[in-house]
Amino acid sequence: MLSADSSFDEKSATALVNSSWANTSDERLKKILTSLVTHLHNFVRDVEPSMEEWMQGIDFLTATGQKCDDKRQEFILLSDLLGVSMLVDAINHRRPAGATESTVLGPFHLVDSPPRELGADISLDANGQPCVVAGTVRSLDGTPLSGALVDVWQANGDGFYDVQQPDKQPELNLRGLFTTDETGRYWLRSVVPRHYPVPTDGPAGDLLEAAGRHPYRPAHIHFIAGAEGHHPVTTHMFLDESPYLDSDAVFGVKQELIRPVTTVCDATRAAEFGVQAPFRLIEFDIVLDAAS
Amino acid sequence: MLSADSSFDEKSATALVNSSWANTSDERLKKILTSLVTHLHNFVRDVEPSMEEWMQGIDFLTATGQKCDDKRQEFILLSDLLGVSMLVDAINHRRPAGATESTVLGPFHLVDSPPRELGADISLDANGQPCVVAGTVRSLDGTPLSGALVDVWQANGDGFYDVQQPDKQPELNLRGLFTTDETGRYWLRSVVPRHYPVPTDGPAGDLLEAAGRHPYRPAHIHFIAGAEGHHPVTTHMFLDESPYLDSDAVFGVKQELIRPVTTVCDATRAAEFGVQAPFRLIEFDIVLDAAS
Repeated sequence: MLSADSSFDEKSATALVNSSWANTSDERLKKILTSLVTHLHNFVRDVEPSMEEWMQGIDFLTATGQKCDDKRQEFILLSDLLGVSMLVDAINHRRPAGATESTVLGPFHLVDSPPRELGADISLDANGQPCVVAGTVRSLDGTPLSGALVDVWQANGDGFYDVQQPDKQPELNLRGLFTTDETGRYWLRSVVPRHYPVPTDGPAGDLLEAAGRHPYRPAHIHFIAGAEGHHPVTTHMFLDESPYLDSDAVFGVKQELIRPVTTVCDATRAAEFGVQAPFRLIEFDIVLDAAS
Repeated sequence: MLSADSSFDEKSATALVNSSWANTSDERLKKILTSLVTHLHNFVRDVEPSMEEWMQGIDFLTATGQKCDDKRQEFILLSDLLGVSMLVDAINHRRPAGATESTVLGPFHLVDSPPRELGADISLDANGQPCVVAGTVRSLDGTPLSGALVDVWQANGDGFYDVQQPDKQPELNLRGLFTTDETGRYWLRSVVPRHYPVPTDGPAGDLLEAAGRHPYRPAHIHFIAGAEGHHPVTTHMFLDESPYLDSDAVFGVKQELIRPVTTVCDATRAAEFGVQAPFRLIEFDIVLDAAS
């Protein structure tokens, strides 16, 4: 027997499908599936896809899944390119004003950064313009956090990470795990990273091209900073001299995370960092809020 | 430089991402992508996925793509199970009241049905309870449509299609392409089909199980009917004696498509169809609306 409200039509569709979760005992799953069906149906009603467009959508999703392997995650890339990754990141990292803003982890934190001494040069092959990166890790109330861990990784002066060029770059190039000193300071030597494109040889790249969007990310350095009793933060520092700051392919840029690369001529400051003046300096303080 | 409205936050996210389609010259693509981002972001805001849930979603989509091959289309199955396929079908086949309602094509129309004479038995191995299927193809104004094509395919009495059992069923079993006679009539012999489950050995099946949903479709016979000067229809006829009529896993059931299987004792009618009385009869008239 068919009950009166089990006959499918355009009007009944969403309620009918959502009634199918009546026996879903996992309440969270039920909430997610109900919301998914509601929004997915709303999308379909809005665009009214032709049968051919629906099939193109099926083919696109299939190709995206089939592009994935141990090293490539095309669905994460797609999530990035649609701003979903950054939105999920923002929802999961609501922090009080003044705390350093988060951004996405990205696909290149594949290996643990090696612990290094303060002042160490993480550029093992000196490919790029030398620079110093330095800052203080503080609590939201201003207290410097000594013993905080600062994990740093970045692309080189050509815009490539070590894991992308295993035959060209030394292992663990441009990666380092630093511990702040008694004043909460960290400093290291590196090279100025270059902007670079996300991978474009898969369905996500095809989508960018069809949509007339470029694949570039502005130049940035990745950070994860954590200290006892505080919420850790995963973020980027963006270089204000980089192109694409207002059109990051993955929407990672936040105004508060942009920093200048300054040129320092002071020999005393150069000596502090163990470099020769003039030198290029990027300063990036990190503010963590206390975990309550 | 970063323009004031290019800084990502929860509030700016959707407008920011949708501004990235500014150079999308294909207006239809722009409309689809803008709507996709809007509804996808609304879904994310509604459920506020944890980072782990987001990653589970990525993994689920990836596994769904990777389950697909030449013979299996797991994303279509997922679309079916979420009622999206039926909704897209409904949107693309809005017909005037009185015309036979459409349903989805389904995954088993893999081979062309062989042309057969009226009255032919499409059950080549007699697996199931014998029956007669008969009806008239008419125009919406009541005119019988002679020379209309009626493509029929179905599962056997165990609930399997020929293509699912290439070693057990004869080739082109339970498939036939019929042409209506001068009175618009078609008739054929077959077996009563059984309800059956959709494939459950992939991510879509895992989803059904996690959600406490059964995978069954009620017993049905597939039809594509077409006649000159009329819109063709792709549909099913559902057996009113079948279980799962009110919980079809793919939401294909429409009230107007349910028919009884009657038992006919009249020897004259049996002779008309070339069978012995008593026999089981399914009557399914098909009404096509004129293409203007």
